[in-house]
Amino acid sequence: MGKLQLYDKDLDYSYAPGIFPAMECLLHAPEQCLRLLISEKSDRSEGIRKLCELAESHHIRIETADRMLSKLSKKENCFAAAVFRKTEKMLNPDRRHVVLHNPGDAGNLGTILRTALGFGYEDVAIICPAVDSDAPHVVRASMGAMFSLNVHHFESFDAYREAAGNRQMFPFMLDASVPPGEAVARKGKAFSLIFGNEATGLPEAFSRIGVPVRIPHSGRIDSLNLSVAAAIGMYLFSVEDV
Amino acid sequence: MGKLQLYDKDLDYSYAPGIFPAMECLLHAPEQCLRLLISEKSDRSEGIRKLCELAESHHIRIETADRMLSKLSKKENCFAAAVFRKTEKMLNPDRRHVVLHNPGDAGNLGTILRTALGFGYEDVAIICPAVDSDAPHVVRASMGAMFSLNVHHFESFDAYREAAGNRQMFPFMLDASVPPGEAVARKGKAFSLIFGNEATGLPEAFSRIGVPVRIPHSGRIDSLNLSVAAAIGMYLFSVEDV
Repeated sequence: MGKLQLYDKDLDYSYAPGIFPAMECLLHAPEQCLRLLISEKSDRSEGIRKLCELAESHHIRIETADRMLSKLSKKENCFAAAVFRKTEKMLNPDRRHVVLHNPGDAGNLGTILRTALGFGYEDVAIICPAVDSDAPHVVRASMGAMFSLNVHHFESFDAYREAAGNRQMFPFMLDASVPPGEAVARKGKAFSLIFGNEATGLPEAFSRIGVPVRIPHSGRIDSLNLSVAAAIGMYLFSVEDV
Repeated sequence: MGKLQLYDKDLDYSYAPGIFPAMECLLHAPEQCLRLLISEKSDRSEGIRKLCELAESHHIRIETADRMLSKLSKKENCFAAAVFRKTEKMLNPDRRHVVLHNPGDAGNLGTILRTALGFGYEDVAIICPAVDSDAPHVVRASMGAMFSLNVHHFESFDAYREAAGNRQMFPFMLDASVPPGEAVARKGKAFSLIFGNEATGLPEAFSRIGVPVRIPHSGRIDSLNLSVAAAIGMYLFSVEDV
């Protein structure tokens, strides 16, 4: 790994910008961390010192990189970033999964990853095509939650289904008929909550898979925001467990 | 009203960019609509035709304004926008309210307004200081939901409380102890769900107001995203009603 390049989805590494997301990388996925970037302007705050200590303890190179940091964060000051190797992780077939079918918005995806970790969903399948889940903006929106999750990409839902083994499937759809409470009552140990694209939802074929669920809302909006629908679904299917 | 200016919070008008948000303005708040802007490049699609019909029926001026439209939307093509007069609306004291205390993020605020409309909360109090709820980015994130809501700003929570009359208060706080199910069981007809700032939450003093609620999540994240917490709270307090 030579000179760092501006982020591009074809690179095999990405950036976790900000003290909090960089800390999550060093704490939970130090084996993925390639370098720690810090700013000359950083005041050697508590956070920066802790980042440097962690990097040193894992023999991770620390460098000052103000130009790259300012490119990573146009809006706010960014005093640190972790450079990390992109990694596909295995999903645990015995656990509950969140399945995101063709997610298209980086901010939504980051928020969903953060919510998933908060509600005990450690395994996340992303069905391609999808927004790049390793992009710095996603990492920041996730607040680094992705470093504590197993995220795996699949070429198609069928590929996921084959890999994931026997489990209950709950696709969330606007034209489904089962309300969440009834669906939750049927859930077992290994199940998958499936959410579609922001604009198009899940393809109609999903209405014949498992138990399609509809989160009730008034007719005065078209649909709920994806990260909102996913959060309500994840909450209701896990509330007794967290 | 002369030549349109680039949006600034001190103007008494703002923009609803995009066909869908502009439509919401013309359908639900035509009295606020000052002009309809359309693009020369618009293909006179169904949506544009319907917008023009509505504008004509309300005697609202239609103008082509490609430069302003491209300034309103840097990322995507924007084929239409409604120019609307900012208006403070009265909250209905007999109904449930959502109260946002010092919200700081435009995208979150827009998402919360959309969710509020979806779950039957038509009255939203914003306690200042707060991000500008009329900014085009908020309107777009709300998908125009704000045109169907009563949104009112207050200088302080005390000012809100005085205006809102006798009602139940449910502040959502990380260090509260009442779980949502228990709080929902106590709710009456007129109540307020209160949510704090993204970074700082609600001030400690709110722990002595009404019934403080905590949405349970694991210790592996610091907190839920504000729009996610608000959505779960609104859903749980309204699920039997929508």
